[in-house]
Amino acid sequence: MDFRELDRDSGQPVYRQIAAQIRAAVDAGELAPGARLPAIRELARSLGVNRDTVATAYETLVAEAVVESGVGRGTFVRRETPVPGPTRFRAPLSAVVERLIAEGVRRGLPAAEGAVPLQAVIPDPSLYPVSEFRRALARVLSEQGADVLGYGGPHGHPGLRRVLAERLPRFGVRRDPDEIVLCQGASQGISLALRLYTEPGDGVVVEEPTYANALATIAGLGLRAIPVPMRGDGLDLGELDRVLARPEARVLYTIPTFHNPTGITTSHEHRRGLLALARRHGTPLIEDAFEMDLHAGPHPIPPLTALDESGQTLLLSSFSKALFPGVRVGWIAARGHAVDGLLALRQAMDLGGAVMLQAAVAAFVESGAYERHLVKLRRNLKGRRDALLAALERELPPGARWTSPAGGYQVWLELPEGIDSQELLEDAVREGVIYAPGHVFTPDGSPSSTLRLSIASVDERAIERGVAALGRALRSRLAEGPGAVRRTAVHV
Amino acid sequence: MDFRELDRDSGQPVYRQIAAQIRAAVDAGELAPGARLPAIRELARSLGVNRDTVATAYETLVAEAVVESGVGRGTFVRRETPVPGPTRFRAPLSAVVERLIAEGVRRGLPAAEGAVPLQAVIPDPSLYPVSEFRRALARVLSEQGADVLGYGGPHGHPGLRRVLAERLPRFGVRRDPDEIVLCQGASQGISLALRLYTEPGDGVVVEEPTYANALATIAGLGLRAIPVPMRGDGLDLGELDRVLARPEARVLYTIPTFHNPTGITTSHEHRRGLLALARRHGTPLIEDAFEMDLHAGPHPIPPLTALDESGQTLLLSSFSKALFPGVRVGWIAARGHAVDGLLALRQAMDLGGAVMLQAAVAAFVESGAYERHLVKLRRNLKGRRDALLAALERELPPGARWTSPAGGYQVWLELPEGIDSQELLEDAVREGVIYAPGHVFTPDGSPSSTLRLSIASVDERAIERGVAALGRALRSRLAEGPGAVRRTAVHV
Repeated sequence: MDFRELDRDSGQPVYRQIAAQIRAAVDAGELAPGARLPAIRELARSLGVNRDTVATAYETLVAEAVVESGVGRGTFVRRETPVPGPTRFRAPLSAVVERLIAEGVRRGLPAAEGAVPLQAVIPDPSLYPVSEFRRALARVLSEQGADVLGYGGPHGHPGLRRVLAERLPRFGVRRDPDEIVLCQGASQGISLALRLYTEPGDGVVVEEPTYANALATIAGLGLRAIPVPMRGDGLDLGELDRVLARPEARVLYTIPTFHNPTGITTSHEHRRGLLALARRHGTPLIEDAFEMDLHAGPHPIPPLTALDESGQTLLLSSFSKALFPGVRVGWIAARGHAVDGLLALRQAMDLGGAVMLQAAVAAFVESGAYERHLVKLRRNLKGRRDALLAALERELPPGARWTSPAGGYQVWLELPEGIDSQELLEDAVREGVIYAPGHVFTPDGSPSSTLRLSIASVDERAIERGVAALGRALRSRLAEGPGAVRRTAVHV
Repeated sequence: MDFRELDRDSGQPVYRQIAAQIRAAVDAGELAPGARLPAIRELARSLGVNRDTVATAYETLVAEAVVESGVGRGTFVRRETPVPGPTRFRAPLSAVVERLIAEGVRRGLPAAEGAVPLQAVIPDPSLYPVSEFRRALARVLSEQGADVLGYGGPHGHPGLRRVLAERLPRFGVRRDPDEIVLCQGASQGISLALRLYTEPGDGVVVEEPTYANALATIAGLGLRAIPVPMRGDGLDLGELDRVLARPEARVLYTIPTFHNPTGITTSHEHRRGLLALARRHGTPLIEDAFEMDLHAGPHPIPPLTALDESGQTLLLSSFSKALFPGVRVGWIAARGHAVDGLLALRQAMDLGGAVMLQAAVAAFVESGAYERHLVKLRRNLKGRRDALLAALERELPPGARWTSPAGGYQVWLELPEGIDSQELLEDAVREGVIYAPGHVFTPDGSPSSTLRLSIASVDERAIERGVAALGRALRSRLAEGPGAVRRTAVHV
């Protein structure tokens, strides 16, 4: 086999890179059962690494039952029929995990020193209310001490559930504190909600494009995403009707407000139509309202759940985007029997979250600090959004189109004349901006002329610089003419 | 249908109790499709509850598609073939969730005002190092601020992984910080490890008895527990050999040190034998070392993983039992490809834990506070264990036998002459002690003459009072003679 060059900056230890190349060669049949691996000394010399590094790579492969070694004989690809060995994952999990490794966990963007980061929906650390939260946490720990250091149980801190139940009516939703289940960010909420209604092999209807990590969660649970296209006004309801009729379509995951990645908020009528369809097909809905506190206008936008009289909707949200992600506090509002199911699943998954953080969030909200923080944050985001939209208008060549969100962090952009956003990315980084190319938001990751811009972690001036850089990259690509599309090796 | 009496002290809202009774009657066929439910007013009167309560119960059932109502016509059991309605869970999850609700989340012990709580392995809040941990957390927040409030990622705080990697050699285990994956308590570690190696329908080989929540996790993932009996010296290796040969036996979950619930620590030879069997059958091992820091003797007891040269073992533990549960910090030590798999699954499950707590634990350990705490805690536990063993010797009638653990919180007791521990529990509570009856630690929950006593949350004097109460309950049961076994309605 031929070894590819090792990447010492990838963050993945060199021995693992070597092991991965050999494993891939075995899996591809390039190294046959019984084939002898190069001697450690030889391979170390040819790769320019320490002998110990190669030895560790070989030991890893022995542990994984990919190869076997005999004292003084060398190292050989195993001959036996593969057994369910210790580090061979079960299919289809194996494929799923590989995909997650490739696309999710180890996802890297091109090296981008100094480029404006418009790619991530991670709130700006400079806006975290650090000292006020620290005070709330210190107060909780000094007043309640050991009471907030035990197991909190799957339901979560009653004080925070009460606070959440008291905030919900302003969004047109009424729930008892007992109908709220705390979870580890909205992401765990998605895991729990999906597990409530599906078994591996089932289909989950999703918007295309949709939240990338929801796609990873769906894959990780052995489920299949069934995409329905997003139009300018939300899901294509005609297509949704056809898809919901398929027996494998067990549940619908939707982000009707400040949709990720498109920024679209659907209309009252669209929501009524969607609810009626789901009700007719008996399909439960998971509504992800992860940015519900981030409306740009003066009034909150009620979630779709506010229109749902049948109890078929699970509403989930979190404090990750409006406070900070590290608090790891999210919640699900449910009805009736679904509450019991979520509690049972949460108990079996991890016994519940960190009560001290739940109690600190409750204290933070009750003190009024959360609402004060939101006022500032919303004003700030509105300024950033307006700066982004103005810059797009100013800097982008004709043919590009984008959304005008009513809140949240993300704007969706369609490039002119079918330019591939993944292929443009390397130029854009060189010009000084990073964005999230559209293909990461689709189940099949096929090429796309769309991309997501996020104002989450950058100020107005940086946004202007970033959009100007995007404009330059785009104009020079257009100047190259329609045949100038190149294939590049950038992985995102 | 006949309604059972409502329990206003159960913590479950009355409307849900009513809904549950009707749902059960429908599921049992006692209420046929099309049958009319009692009028709200009538049922409210006969149950002695508010009309709104009954109305809410009926609305819940409408939302669940169990019943349907027409204006002015009344409420009827639905006639249609059940659709995959909003709150009908998918089989087999439905049964699993019901089981978890019944046995796990909603598990209640008899009302036991003043009884000595020897049932739970929840560390004593009076021993939590509250102020020192609070200082560590405050320091981390004031020095690192927003840096520990963002997404920490699935791998977890590098500083804590380094601290853990530095502690492992004293247990005979060597791991790189990158080979450690932080998780939400050992319980999430169990979920992640099981998902790495199994698909729903697969079997998980477990000790019988074993950790009750691991059984819930196994059921919650749609897996089946395959029990192998524990002997005085650990798993029955002959039986294990036969079980591992079964194709559905995909992974072995084992607690070789301070076993829960029996307190047994297996010998070096037993561990070698077990590892050899697992290796021969190609079965990965999940080693739960949840109490590894709680050795009663002066020296740590190396985990089974220390003997494993093949990399087939995942070692997991947490700070829940030696620090406090509310920190929700556990970890898994793995090798090679398994690390990538765990990271991918964790990412897809909940994006990772609360960095500020991980960083605070790292600071707490690095400052030496953890080792100082452990010295005190171990001395305390040794005193409690000795008090428990002496009291058992003194208070229990002949025929009872128990284990002598080398550390940890739990002691396993076998009652004389086949007395059912579940049936004895009500008497024991009346005398002034609660324990965990043995059947909760088995997959099928069948009657058992065993029980677990825990010294986790009670001091020496309380332990002595509790064991004296157990002695009284037992002697009076024995005085009633062998035919005196009664069936009681206590559910644990």
